[in-house]
Amino acid sequence: MDIRKYVRSIPGFPKPGIIFRDITPILSDANCFRYSIDRLCDLFQNSGADKVVAAEARGFMFAAGISYKLGWGLVPIRKPGKLPWKTKRREYDLEYGTGELHIHTDAVANGEKVLLIDDLLATGGTAKAMINLVEDLGGVVVGLGFVIELDDLKGRKMLDGYRVESLEHYEGE
Amino acid sequence: MDIRKYVRSIPGFPKPGIIFRDITPILSDANCFRYSIDRLCDLFQNSGADKVVAAEARGFMFAAGISYKLGWGLVPIRKPGKLPWKTKRREYDLEYGTGELHIHTDAVANGEKVLLIDDLLATGGTAKAMINLVEDLGGVVVGLGFVIELDDLKGRKMLDGYRVESLEHYEGE
Repeated sequence: MDIRKYVRSIPGFPKPGIIFRDITPILSDANCFRYSIDRLCDLFQNSGADKVVAAEARGFMFAAGISYKLGWGLVPIRKPGKLPWKTKRREYDLEYGTGELHIHTDAVANGEKVLLIDDLLATGGTAKAMINLVEDLGGVVVGLGFVIELDDLKGRKMLDGYRVESLEHYEGE
Repeated sequence: MDIRKYVRSIPGFPKPGIIFRDITPILSDANCFRYSIDRLCDLFQNSGADKVVAAEARGFMFAAGISYKLGWGLVPIRKPGKLPWKTKRREYDLEYGTGELHIHTDAVANGEKVLLIDDLLATGGTAKAMINLVEDLGGVVVGLGFVIELDDLKGRKMLDGYRVESLEHYEGE
């Protein structure tokens, strides 16, 4: 199955000069969604992880499929004000200003091996913040899985030393 | 399995007088997450739906598990500015002011039968907005499934005429 056929490229969203890679057609086609999950599971099922961590919100859907299939716990990393219990927080750079992500302090145990999942790897800022949050709790990141990687933005460089797998790669604007 | 053991009740979040029902322990326990998905699937697998629709963000995770298991397409309903293509929008009442949700106009076909999923049924405002969005596209809502229902808030009354199923019910503050 060619996942790229289910990625809708939208020039000018969210602003001029950007081509947004819309993954909603992957989701709405049950076969393509399942295929994407299955491929990510194939890549990481022997990684030693038994938990999958995702940042809101699109990443939740792919991570949940992996969690269901492999029987791994599922951990949401969220924006401020969303997690009701004790959290660790990390700021990360956005193009203008900073973002902030939180994880529940009991979400990952010391020494626990986890897989990080997101739909898209762009500059790597979100992914790096996710790594930091997991490691702040003593967790071990055994890999990061993405559906799409925007190669030109070189996010992979920010994740040096970690195993990074992406199902599809896009170059250029 | 007793799902209630995996619901963490947090008094005073997000503000005094509210008891927040935290479902993250359901997610992080792989058996409980899978059990919740399986029970929702059992309830609705013969409903005639072949698509599951969820509003961001916690609902995405339960809906994605159902999508994966049953082979149904998955449709995210999102807050403003998140969906990159053409959308329908609906406003709905919040305690103070209004919220707004969007759906891609090609996400549900005319006559298509869909299941709506969310983690929690409270006042029903979000669920009713989801129904309206699906019906604006000509879709047919065959049911709504929730992990938790807060009975005192009477959200079910706003969903009169629809099949509503909740795995667990909570009463009182």
